Amino acid sequence: MLAEIKGLNEECGIFGIWGHTDAAQISYYGLHSLQHRGQEGAGIVVTNGNELEGAKGLGLITEVFSKGQLNDLHGKAAIGHVRYATAGGGGYENVQPLLFQSHTGSIALAHNGNLVNASRLRKDLEMQGSIFQTTSDTEVLAHLIKRNGSAPLKDSIKASLNMIKGAFAYLVLTKDAMYVALDPNGFRPLALAKLGDAYVVASETCAFDVVGAKYIRDINPGELLIISDNGVETDQFTSSVNHTICSMEYIYFSRPDSNIDNINVHAARKNMGRVLANEAPVEADVVIGVPDSSISAAVGYAEESGIPYELGLIKNRYVARTFIQPSQELREQGVKMKLSPVRSIVEGKRVVMVDDSIVRGTTSRRIVQMLRDAGASEVHVRIGAPPLKNPCYYGIDTSTREELIAATNTIEEICEEIGADSLEFISLEGLLNAIGRNHEGPNRGQCTACFTGKYPTVIYDENELVHSHN
Amino acid sequence: MLAEIKGLNEECGIFGIWGHTDAAQISYYGLHSLQHRGQEGAGIVVTNGNELEGAKGLGLITEVFSKGQLNDLHGKAAIGHVRYATAGGGGYENVQPLLFQSHTGSIALAHNGNLVNASRLRKDLEMQGSIFQTTSDTEVLAHLIKRNGSAPLKDSIKASLNMIKGAFAYLVLTKDAMYVALDPNGFRPLALAKLGDAYVVASETCAFDVVGAKYIRDINPGELLIISDNGVETDQFTSSVNHTICSMEYIYFSRPDSNIDNINVHAARKNMGRVLANEAPVEADVVIGVPDSSISAAVGYAEESGIPYELGLIKNRYVARTFIQPSQELREQGVKMKLSPVRSIVEGKRVVMVDDSIVRGTTSRRIVQMLRDAGASEVHVRIGAPPLKNPCYYGIDTSTREELIAATNTIEEICEEIGADSLEFISLEGLLNAIGRNHEGPNRGQCTACFTGKYPTVIYDENELVHSHN
Amino acid sequence: MLAEIKGLNEECGIFGIWGHTDAAQISYYGLHSLQHRGQEGAGIVVTNGNELEGAKGLGLITEVFSKGQLNDLHGKAAIGHVRYATAGGGGYENVQPLLFQSHTGSIALAHNGNLVNASRLRKDLEMQGSIFQTTSDTEVLAHLIKRNGSAPLKDSIKASLNMIKGAFAYLVLTKDAMYVALDPNGFRPLALAKLGDAYVVASETCAFDVVGAKYIRDINPGELLIISDNGVETDQFTSSVNHTICSMEYIYFSRPDSNIDNINVHAARKNMGRVLANEAPVEADVVIGVPDSSISAAVGYAEESGIPYELGLIKNRYVARTFIQPSQELREQGVKMKLSPVRSIVEGKRVVMVDDSIVRGTTSRRIVQMLRDAGASEVHVRIGAPPLKNPCYYGIDTSTREELIAATNTIEEICEEIGADSLEFISLEGLLNAIGRNHEGPNRGQCTACFTGKYPTVIYDENELVHSHN
Amino acid sequence: MLAEIKGLNEECGIFGIWGHTDAAQISYYGLHSLQHRGQEGAGIVVTNGNELEGAKGLGLITEVFSKGQLNDLHGKAAIGHVRYATAGGGGYENVQPLLFQSHTGSIALAHNGNLVNASRLRKDLEMQGSIFQTTSDTEVLAHLIKRNGSAPLKDSIKASLNMIKGAFAYLVLTKDAMYVALDPNGFRPLALAKLGDAYVVASETCAFDVVGAKYIRDINPGELLIISDNGVETDQFTSSVNHTICSMEYIYFSRPDSNIDNINVHAARKNMGRVLANEAPVEADVVIGVPDSSISAAVGYAEESGIPYELGLIKNRYVARTFIQPSQELREQGVKMKLSPVRSIVEGKRVVMVDDSIVRGTTSRRIVQMLRDAGASEVHVRIGAPPLKNPCYYGIDTSTREELIAATNTIEEICEEIGADSLEFISLEGLLNAIGRNHEGPNRGQCTACFTGKYPTVIYDENELVHSHN
Repeated sequence: MLAEIKGLNEECGIFGIWGHTDAAQISYYGLHSLQHRGQEGAGIVVTNGNELEGAKGLGLITEVFSKGQLNDLHGKAAIGHVRYATAGGGGYENVQPLLFQSHTGSIALAHNGNLVNASRLRKDLEMQGSIFQTTSDTEVLAHLIKRNGSAPLKDSIKASLNMIKGAFAYLVLTKDAMYVALDPNGFRPLALAKLGDAYVVASETCAFDVVGAKYIRDINPGELLIISDNGVETDQFTSSVNHTICSMEYIYFSRPDSNIDNINVHAARKNMGRVLANEAPVEADVVIGVPDSSISAAVGYAEESGIPYELGLIKNRYVARTFIQPSQELREQGVKMKLSPVRSIVEGKRVVMVDDSIVRGTTSRRIVQMLRDAGASEVHVRIGAPPLKNPCYYGIDTSTREELIAATNTIEEICEEIGADSLEFISLEGLLNAIGRNHEGPNRGQCTACFTGKYPTVIYDENELVHSHN
Repeated sequence: MLAEIKGLNEECGIFGIWGHTDAAQISYYGLHSLQHRGQEGAGIVVTNGNELEGAKGLGLITEVFSKGQLNDLHGKAAIGHVRYATAGGGGYENVQPLLFQSHTGSIALAHNGNLVNASRLRKDLEMQGSIFQTTSDTEVLAHLIKRNGSAPLKDSIKASLNMIKGAFAYLVLTKDAMYVALDPNGFRPLALAKLGDAYVVASETCAFDVVGAKYIRDINPGELLIISDNGVETDQFTSSVNHTICSMEYIYFSRPDSNIDNINVHAARKNMGRVLANEAPVEADVVIGVPDSSISAAVGYAEESGIPYELGLIKNRYVARTFIQPSQELREQGVKMKLSPVRSIVEGKRVVMVDDSIVRGTTSRRIVQMLRDAGASEVHVRIGAPPLKNPCYYGIDTSTREELIAATNTIEEICEEIGADSLEFISLEGLLNAIGRNHEGPNRGQCTACFTGKYPTVIYDENELVHSHN
Repeated sequence: MLAEIKGLNEECGIFGIWGHTDAAQISYYGLHSLQHRGQEGAGIVVTNGNELEGAKGLGLITEVFSKGQLNDLHGKAAIGHVRYATAGGGGYENVQPLLFQSHTGSIALAHNGNLVNASRLRKDLEMQGSIFQTTSDTEVLAHLIKRNGSAPLKDSIKASLNMIKGAFAYLVLTKDAMYVALDPNGFRPLALAKLGDAYVVASETCAFDVVGAKYIRDINPGELLIISDNGVETDQFTSSVNHTICSMEYIYFSRPDSNIDNINVHAARKNMGRVLANEAPVEADVVIGVPDSSISAAVGYAEESGIPYELGLIKNRYVARTFIQPSQELREQGVKMKLSPVRSIVEGKRVVMVDDSIVRGTTSRRIVQMLRDAGASEVHVRIGAPPLKNPCYYGIDTSTREELIAATNTIEEICEEIGADSLEFISLEGLLNAIGRNHEGPNRGQCTACFTGKYPTVIYDENELVHSHN
Repeated sequence: MLAEIKGLNEECGIFGIWGHTDAAQISYYGLHSLQHRGQEGAGIVVTNGNELEGAKGLGLITEVFSKGQLNDLHGKAAIGHVRYATAGGGGYENVQPLLFQSHTGSIALAHNGNLVNASRLRKDLEMQGSIFQTTSDTEVLAHLIKRNGSAPLKDSIKASLNMIKGAFAYLVLTKDAMYVALDPNGFRPLALAKLGDAYVVASETCAFDVVGAKYIRDINPGELLIISDNGVETDQFTSSVNHTICSMEYIYFSRPDSNIDNINVHAARKNMGRVLANEAPVEADVVIGVPDSSISAAVGYAEESGIPYELGLIKNRYVARTFIQPSQELREQGVKMKLSPVRSIVEGKRVVMVDDSIVRGTTSRRIVQMLRDAGASEVHVRIGAPPLKNPCYYGIDTSTREELIAATNTIEEICEEIGADSLEFISLEGLLNAIGRNHEGPNRGQCTACFTGKYPTVIYDENELVHSHN
């Protein structure tokens, strides 16, 4: 149940458009559909072909643009960003896109991912006299591009992209073009579409549906697109590529109506449920999912097992930033927060509870207890991902290995810890089958490092990587 | 798809507690779980046994109590309210509970429902010198109680309750007791629970689950409870009762995890889907529901028909008050608002689209069109309620008969209007069976006036009733 | 130094206009000029001849009307109010004008003053079944008018005005007329002016200058004006009048650019300084005033004594509601709040410090200490009012007699308490001469009860009067 | 009347403290007393000896720090800034202090003044790969220091200070020291004080009085102080100095309770009034000043001429950012904005109106007209500064020469333009005498370029200087 865990959170979302008179408005709607990828900050930068201007702020995109600022952003092209921020990096400065006004050519950047050598590059640049105003990885690329400034911009960008390592999907906007780049592993989803004559790029395809754009294709690892009034120019900044898209995008991050490499996320999750039903069957009366991200898998489990799917857990839709948390005393008296069990559904029933993952185990324990308090006679937990045993360095905020319950406990121990009657995880093979990517090579083009510890890149900054994600 | 329609909206929610040191906090969490019944205003009044004090405001309960006001509300008992307001009645004054400080005994009131003789009573009272500060029905009861002021308060309240007609669930708080009253038809749900030694009442039982209270029973039509430090005293203010609870509470209003008269709302909706599958089968590839209220029925339809349930429509969770609506031009270009179809699920598929109701038909038409634009080869609409042909005078804001598409069109005409390949409504008998109440008498104790035109009460203020609901 | 003292504060201000297409806007500017009379709430009610509507809120008038609400108030006539509120009475409900919508004739009221029998009247009305929604005196008049409702409105208002006692300046607005009433003692200033064809009334004449209106005359004690499309009708609701305007309006409350009964307030204060210079001369090097209200008197003292006037105390203009008060520790280290001494002016100098009054003495002591810390060799305090020995029941919030330092201490004791080298108050005769009203009778038509204890009316509610002012 | 004129405005204010446990709080109060120097933004950066952290925002300091942010700023040293921003440069990014976190040493800067070669330096730096995130001059110094980064910080700062030209008072904070620098002309005031064992620097001495600090001395032109736990180290970054402090600081900018080079600003202004009375006497009945900055000069004129000083113009104290400006139509009907005349004082009188300066003449014309409308029989305007004929490049936002009425008109023409009966300016010699600085050399160490056109420095960026001030 990843969304409930502080310390393991959604990533950022990026959106760009070139060639539409309502570029800022379109970006607003596109980013709105990517809001699940980050709620702490949002911004849009536009160009009218002469100059760049932008607006950004802390909060949801609807909050940031609540007072007519959108009307001031005129232009034919725009890039935008919704941001998840960890504690300490949550300032206004770090909200993206970053916009650098310059006599030698203004430039704006939006970034989704996490570099694994940002800290080293930053130190080098500071030694050479660069001043950083943010704590975000994103600014590193801007400095590299400027340092390589004597070359034509495209060359400078290509050279810079080869210097950064890790997971990154970048949008770079100038008055003349929008540059779209994806790291050589393609860790993060990024796709291209067309809206009339305009080109659109977005972290997820759900943004295309919302703005009425027609999907063309996913961006390739190591690819650099230059989108301008001349159309789309395709290039590779490197040919040393190895596609390893983040498995968690399928399991938990992406919206169920998005497709990644032409695989629908809801369908993949429903398959995970089906596979789980086969790999880990159990005699039970009802199947329930932990909302929202585990509903699809629960429906799949129910369909495959023949056990009816019911609404056994309800998530309050009106949880706000200003929500007052119940005191420990009230919580012990039974006051629930965001999630509540439905007594009439679970009372006296053997329940299969399907969830997407277990990080620290505390949330799972709480939900199991809730179900028991509501009268469930048995609670069987089924997880749509293999055990999370290793930290992520590519953008998923899992803090440290110590916090991952599966890193130091057997499944039996976890089962006891969360108080379930039984606990089963999907197998890695089952997961890969459920998703069903047809890439060749190990893991069918997916990164499975959090399960296996086999990281597809060198980790340069290991000690410093925990706290700066974009 | 009632929630999407301006002019047919959720009602209010009320919550009360007597005998708990954290009365205000408990009310906050209880009201939070009732937020779906009204988002325009919220308030809480507490008593410490000596005096009454309250806080209220426009907006969600989390917004109203975002700045520590809750800490100022100390007391052993509280009543609270979340409010839906129609245009024109949306001012701060009308936010409840209404609190009247008086030398002769302060009093606070919270109300869910709609009186059918409020206008007449109000005119009479004004002729006698009463001054009204709100435009809400709720204040009428306060004036009646005060006018009957020479009698003991309980007698005065009973006399006043007999003067008001229509749908009402009232909570009245004084420093000595909390009075709980339900109209003789029991139009609105209202239930009693216990939390430790404290008594709790709420519009829906989901509030009990959230605060950890144990359900005792539903309040009876015509009943008056007096809850005080002496416990619960039960009385009837009238014996002329005829239970006709609003069918829409099962179909659309209430939260799926609530029970009404011991029938779970989710289960009832799932049954509606099952009945629909039998009454109106169709050859199709996928079943989808219109989120959020029609998901249960869609799952029921899928289970009964054997057609798989899929996530074909996605609702954006981040729609805020400040959301900028797309211009007509952008909408025509395909920019979606709150709801978007999942192309990969519906493309090339024969779709069964399950919804809870059709009011004006405009939203249904838009959704059908969306699904076709996303590639659905056929769209078969199945509705979990019979056709809505008559306005509601008991608290559901359906405006006028003219706006109800089913009042003036045949099912075939509606089908054509919304652009569906086929359209079927559940039968009234099917609805009653699906809900499965075991009351005797016609319609098993449900009000079906919006379907049949047979109103269970006289409608006194018919011409003036449209605009003031609580 | 009244403004600095919590517990002795400004009163309310009222403004009305009849016959101008920009009635709400004009009221906004007029109220803005009366803002010094109350900063806690503001509101405006307009009529277009058919109905009444209003807007009000907590805070300054510029804050209340910061978001375009003014544009929604269309009408040919308006009344408005700026409010000072004591703790406990500071809620939104009490912000004026109060607006009562009614089938039998909507009515709005704005009030400046304090009734001395409000509590009794309120109890009587509640015994008869009236419900009060505010804790303000203002509502009492509304109920009385409605209770006398069978008579024509003018008669009903006249009868009601004879039932209320104390200090009151009332504006009552209906769709047909604006009623303007002043209590029989004329405690509070209230004047009439003309702006083109429109009539304007305001608490102070400074409001006329700001909106470009031409002063006609002050309202008389016991007078009732009915201003309508037929012009101004003059009436007296009582002939038992005795003009005793509040001395504090001249000394401290009113703006220096206002005239009361054709006497300019700045000029009166400057005369107080001149009289003080003659009554209480002293050898000194500089004269300084405590800003803002004592500057005029200080200039008068300087001119008469020949000692130069200097800017020895500076008030920070940017003190806001959100100002963080220095901790006791920082204050002891010398951190100042709103007022700071100018070292280069007072260092080594014998200073005459002119102030308008002494209430509790704490502020005076602090300022004297400040001046000594800044190097003043001597500090001679001269006060423009006689000693305040008695509480006010007519609208000035002096709390209780116990808090008035002059009620229980001799001048010598006060001098020692505040740490001055000498302390002198103006004599009552000197004050009356300085103001120079040409009314006959005792005290030339001024209320001097706070100095002498001779109250010009019976005090009905004495025990309850302290906490509700308007 | 400079304050009223858009386009000629207050400058920034800076404040710093080293060695106090309440460094942030002290800075808050100090900056509050400097608020008149800039109201558009404010910020504070602290260091605890290990790292730097800060908070800043748009608006007044009381607004920026209204929500407890001050409590999060712990440290023994702090620098702060209040900012005036011209249109276009008003973004959050430009609010100071600028804080640059770096592996090679974090650094924060606060700046008051205006560089005359910033544009050139910026272009050079960008050619070398520097990225600027603000449009403020302040950032230029940061980049220069970093580019000179191989040297010890003090040397790097000294080298960088020699590269920038124009008017600047800089505070630079690191974890080890606070650097205080003033340009070689000492255009802006900057002084040093002691508070217990802590050292304090501020733009004006009024900040010392407010926080209880004891004035030591003004900072010298070309001086660099390094304040650390070792005390104050004094150095000169250049010996080519020529003190030419801005005359406008005495005439208009600084607070009257501040001293600049031991001359009290109020006293200087009062002397300007005295000199004016001698240089430009007139037969009149009353002397009035334009509030707030011209009151001192008006009192001086009155004392010297024997004509009584009266309160003929009142400034509304409650003018807020959200104030709704009267429409042109209402203005023509006589609705006033911030300033209103006192009819009873000026009616039928010959008025001497003392003001501090005339920029475009539009405000003067409006005030003269106001006074005539209020009945003044004659209006004689006396100005405390010589005619403003030349733009300022050192931080005063006078826009262009074309807007200065005195640049293209004779005094007689200006007199006619503003509608006065007579108009006189103080002579340059009179001004210098009134201020009474005892520096040797031309103009006694004052910059008089705005009067004479003799700029004390080369103006490098002339064409680009208009829009970026700090």
